[in-house]
Amino acid sequence: MNVKIKGLLYSGKAKDILETDDPEVVAIRFRDDITAGDGEKKDTLEMKGYYNSLISAKIFEVLEDAGVATQYLELHEPGCILARRLEMIPLEVITRNIAAGSIVRRFPFREGQEFRPPLIQIDYKSDEHGDPMLNDDIILALGLATREELDEIRSITLRINDVLTEFFRSRSLVLPDFKLEFGRDSNGDIRLGDEISPDTCRLWDMATGEPLDKDIFRRGESGVVSAYRRVAEMILDPEDIERWKVKL
Amino acid sequence: MNVKIKGLLYSGKAKDILETDDPEVVAIRFRDDITAGDGEKKDTLEMKGYYNSLISAKIFEVLEDAGVATQYLELHEPGCILARRLEMIPLEVITRNIAAGSIVRRFPFREGQEFRPPLIQIDYKSDEHGDPMLNDDIILALGLATREELDEIRSITLRINDVLTEFFRSRSLVLPDFKLEFGRDSNGDIRLGDEISPDTCRLWDMATGEPLDKDIFRRGESGVVSAYRRVAEMILDPEDIERWKVKL
Ligand SMILES: Nc1ncnc2c1ncn2[C@@H]1O[C@H](COP(=O)(O)OP(=O)(O)OP(=O)(O)O)[C@@H](O)[C@H]1O
Ligand SMILES: Nc1ncnc2c1ncn2[C@@H]1O[C@H](COP(=O)(O)OP(=O)(O)OP(=O)(O)O)[C@@H](O)[C@H]1O
Ligand SMILES: [Mg+2]
Ligand SMILES: [Mg+2]
Repeated sequence: MNVKIKGLLYSGKAKDILETDDPEVVAIRFRDDITAGDGEKKDTLEMKGYYNSLISAKIFEVLEDAGVATQYLELHEPGCILARRLEMIPLEVITRNIAAGSIVRRFPFREGQEFRPPLIQIDYKSDEHGDPMLNDDIILALGLATREELDEIRSITLRINDVLTEFFRSRSLVLPDFKLEFGRDSNGDIRLGDEISPDTCRLWDMATGEPLDKDIFRRGESGVVSAYRRVAEMILDPEDIERWKVKL
Repeated sequence: MNVKIKGLLYSGKAKDILETDDPEVVAIRFRDDITAGDGEKKDTLEMKGYYNSLISAKIFEVLEDAGVATQYLELHEPGCILARRLEMIPLEVITRNIAAGSIVRRFPFREGQEFRPPLIQIDYKSDEHGDPMLNDDIILALGLATREELDEIRSITLRINDVLTEFFRSRSLVLPDFKLEFGRDSNGDIRLGDEISPDTCRLWDMATGEPLDKDIFRRGESGVVSAYRRVAEMILDPEDIERWKVKL
């Protein structure tokens, strides 16, 4: 895809969104910044953005191949993907297959218990309000999405969960939970945006059960980037490494 | 109704539940204790239980007359009602017609804004967990209620809101929000339990807009009991005062 990357549109905690000469296309640059606990815990980890961009690009391709409408256009270069510019909906759509993290602290679930059907939790993406959990009535009353959009977001999310659980399983990874963000494209259609990476998923090595995700950082342990690289190694195919000219 | 009241079954923050010689019937004794802010703020206000029992009894009669299935059997004496013993469902079902209180602090709603349709919020009744807000997936995963029970609770709640909004309007009172608790009767059917009073509703004088509810206590102001008496005066009919032999 031949677009020229232009100025910064906005900069989040982990990515920069840049304009291109096509008004419907943005470049998403994955930075090495990592944060946890509402931004209290911070660090910069060399190569984190590089691996996350590859992991995200691969997963978006898997989803597009499965017929899921996403923002994804292509990997522009390692560290940067080209995507459809979306009007983002400020919701964090969290899907849980296995109880871990905040859900276990807040409610009487047993760590490691399976959720069948998967449990969907929708938080308000608002640093100002501390990302509180929402319910459908509150989402509608705040005007964040329509009833139809909400139903569609839920059904796309369950489909994504099926596709990704199976994809990761085939790569010897377990997917306990993950967070999605959706937006509206220029036709007003809902598409999956943002990123899917070890920053936004729990991913466990199926053989050992060890986390290969941001929980390593949350716990203050070392080996964050090597775990993320390991995820990239496990999910990229030789052809991906070839066509993307990456070194793992 | 001729039942003998026996020992204490359990004692909550504002009411005692007593056994009777009929295993399906309990006596609910309204105490003068009042608490706010998860039990941090506490007091005992003479006659509060008396007025709340009358207000609750009257409202349960209004609801039964409108065909809503409730726990209510009769006012045993001022301060005490007889009710069907229910297996309580640990949910606090909050209905909001006008934004006030925690919803305004937690989300970007404007104080006083109208919710149309009304907004329903369901909290987990668990002091241990700090009464966190739930969503349907979490309620089902915790096994607190079935999908069918949850749908029924929602539809009964909306019906109760219609009946009570109209009833209070006819008595020059505004109903911004209220909290309900439901339980299962001996047939496994859902019934409205607990109480409906100025401890569990926001109620505003339609003429002046002033609160006649627990917000007076939350704000540390005086006049709590006289406001509750005023509500009793506004909603009890002369025949109620006559048959219940009460003094207001
Ligand atoms: N396709 C897209 N078009 C436009 N914006 C997008 C797209 N995908 C993601 N975004 C937005 O890019 C922003 C940057 O992402 P990043 O993860 O760095 O930010 P964040 O820390 O999650 O949130 P914040 O923007 O509050 O800092 C996010 O607000 C995200 O919603
Ligand atoms: N019909 C009923 N049958 C059995 N229990 C009931 C019935 N109605 C209400 N209850 C229960 O009676 C208890 C006492 O009520 P009260 O409002 O004093 O308690 P609370 O402070 O809200 O809660 P807690 O029980 O946690 O102290 C509550 O747990 C309530 O759910
Ligand atoms: Mg983000
Ligand atoms: Mg109570």
